[in-house]
Amino acid sequence: MRASSNIKLMGKGAISKKAKKRKCNNSSGRGAIYIIGIGPGSLKDLTQRAKDAIKKSDIIVGYTTYIDLIKGLIKNKEVFATGMMREVERCQKAIDIALSGRKVAVVSSGDSGIYGMAGLVLELLQKTEKSANCELRIANLKSEIRNPKSEISVSIIPGVPAFCSAASLLGAPIMHDFASISLSDLLTPYEVILKRIKSAAEADFVIILYNPKSKKRVKQIEDVREILLKYRKGSTPVGIVKGSSRENEEIKITTLGGLLEYYDFIDMQTIVIIGNSSSCVYDNKIITPRGYKV
Amino acid sequence: MRASSNIKLMGKGAISKKAKKRKCNNSSGRGAIYIIGIGPGSLKDLTQRAKDAIKKSDIIVGYTTYIDLIKGLIKNKEVFATGMMREVERCQKAIDIALSGRKVAVVSSGDSGIYGMAGLVLELLQKTEKSANCELRIANLKSEIRNPKSEISVSIIPGVPAFCSAASLLGAPIMHDFASISLSDLLTPYEVILKRIKSAAEADFVIILYNPKSKKRVKQIEDVREILLKYRKGSTPVGIVKGSSRENEEIKITTLGGLLEYYDFIDMQTIVIIGNSSSCVYDNKIITPRGYKV
Repeated sequence: MRASSNIKLMGKGAISKKAKKRKCNNSSGRGAIYIIGIGPGSLKDLTQRAKDAIKKSDIIVGYTTYIDLIKGLIKNKEVFATGMMREVERCQKAIDIALSGRKVAVVSSGDSGIYGMAGLVLELLQKTEKSANCELRIANLKSEIRNPKSEISVSIIPGVPAFCSAASLLGAPIMHDFASISLSDLLTPYEVILKRIKSAAEADFVIILYNPKSKKRVKQIEDVREILLKYRKGSTPVGIVKGSSRENEEIKITTLGGLLEYYDFIDMQTIVIIGNSSSCVYDNKIITPRGYKV
Repeated sequence: MRASSNIKLMGKGAISKKAKKRKCNNSSGRGAIYIIGIGPGSLKDLTQRAKDAIKKSDIIVGYTTYIDLIKGLIKNKEVFATGMMREVERCQKAIDIALSGRKVAVVSSGDSGIYGMAGLVLELLQKTEKSANCELRIANLKSEIRNPKSEISVSIIPGVPAFCSAASLLGAPIMHDFASISLSDLLTPYEVILKRIKSAAEADFVIILYNPKSKKRVKQIEDVREILLKYRKGSTPVGIVKGSSRENEEIKITTLGGLLEYYDFIDMQTIVIIGNSSSCVYDNKIITPRGYKV
């Protein structure tokens, strides 16, 4: 069962005229938000649950690139797509649409719960609740939903994370305990990021790096390599995957020592996976042993 | 594109008579292993890529419980299912079947690359290569496969990890950097596990616990809580999900302080997610803010 929240409007204040008009187009009159992880890229990596939710939606909201990835499924549905850095606007738009009684899909690539939109939608709902003076009740699909016409439901639908797709292309680099760290300092202080790199290195986690480099942010990957080399050998296997499961997919296997040879290759669409102390390369695949006696 | 390895036999030594006989039943004569992540449980959480690979397979190999989860897709296919703790036997069996020229699916729940079978199959292939005196060549679906009749291909197909399904039921607990740690000390020294807990706590990672408790292994969860309470408040949100996306699915939301109230509820089929220092509970959902200004 997917969990779902229900936002119960105490008055009609939160519904605009435009919204009321839209509401008439919605048979059930009950708004819904589906926060969907569409997987790494290819439609082959989408789950049935995600496809069903897209099908049920009246309108699809998402970052332009993600909308393009699923355009084969959207067909003639209404779309609200914006560029990067406009996440708050997109998620608020989705909430407003749901409050008007329509069913809206908010799509994230990979899993919607890993650096995705699930948290932001819930945070904004919390704010909306306060500003709209309404009251929230928990309900999952097992429980009865009272007065459905005055509520919206929120469902979070997981997807295949980008790092799992990247790992599957590299072999089996994540067979043991792992840590995932985003190198983007737009929302996180850089010192926090570096502390996490240090701790993950100390405890011999396999390390997954999201957002390793952007046009403006270029030095992080060098700093990270420098820290990791204090704890791991230069020969530690490193996998670099760009556009995993997308048309521009490219795979590189190197070492921590040799990582910077791929400096120009690494960008925002790249995931970097650094092996732990027992990871090895075999048949051009990274294997991190789980510990079975073979 | 899924990456695939090719095991090239230098002689027929590795093929048993039984295998040769089987080989006749295989039109292409080329063996294949699909290492498939079937997702957390429900067929709704399977990807199309996983379904296609199961369809292409002559025989399905896996842990009995996982075979049951996908029996709706297996239909009349041959099945090799064994109980827990027989992973090496199962994966070796899959390799032997593939070497005989048949197409075999090795199924893991969740993602095959996270505490799954991908690594073990690759490790055993490495061993098989040596013992069978054959030579391995890298090839992905983009590249040409030479002399296909003398090779087997290995493809790793990612799935929705159990922890992503669990998180989607809890709200959005994993919106920031996270660490995944298995508490099973069958394959990992306990001191290594505890060191990882300590480091993940110090660096304020959201922490995902796999295999938190078994019939024999009962104390881990108490030790972990004790360590975490040195770094995080007793009010830190904790989500506990049993049988995520399965018929026995149950969800509990508590705090680090109150975790042991669910001591009896926690078992091997349970995933525990511990929030970071900014995680909060709202509308009975755990939210870990990503850092957006809302």
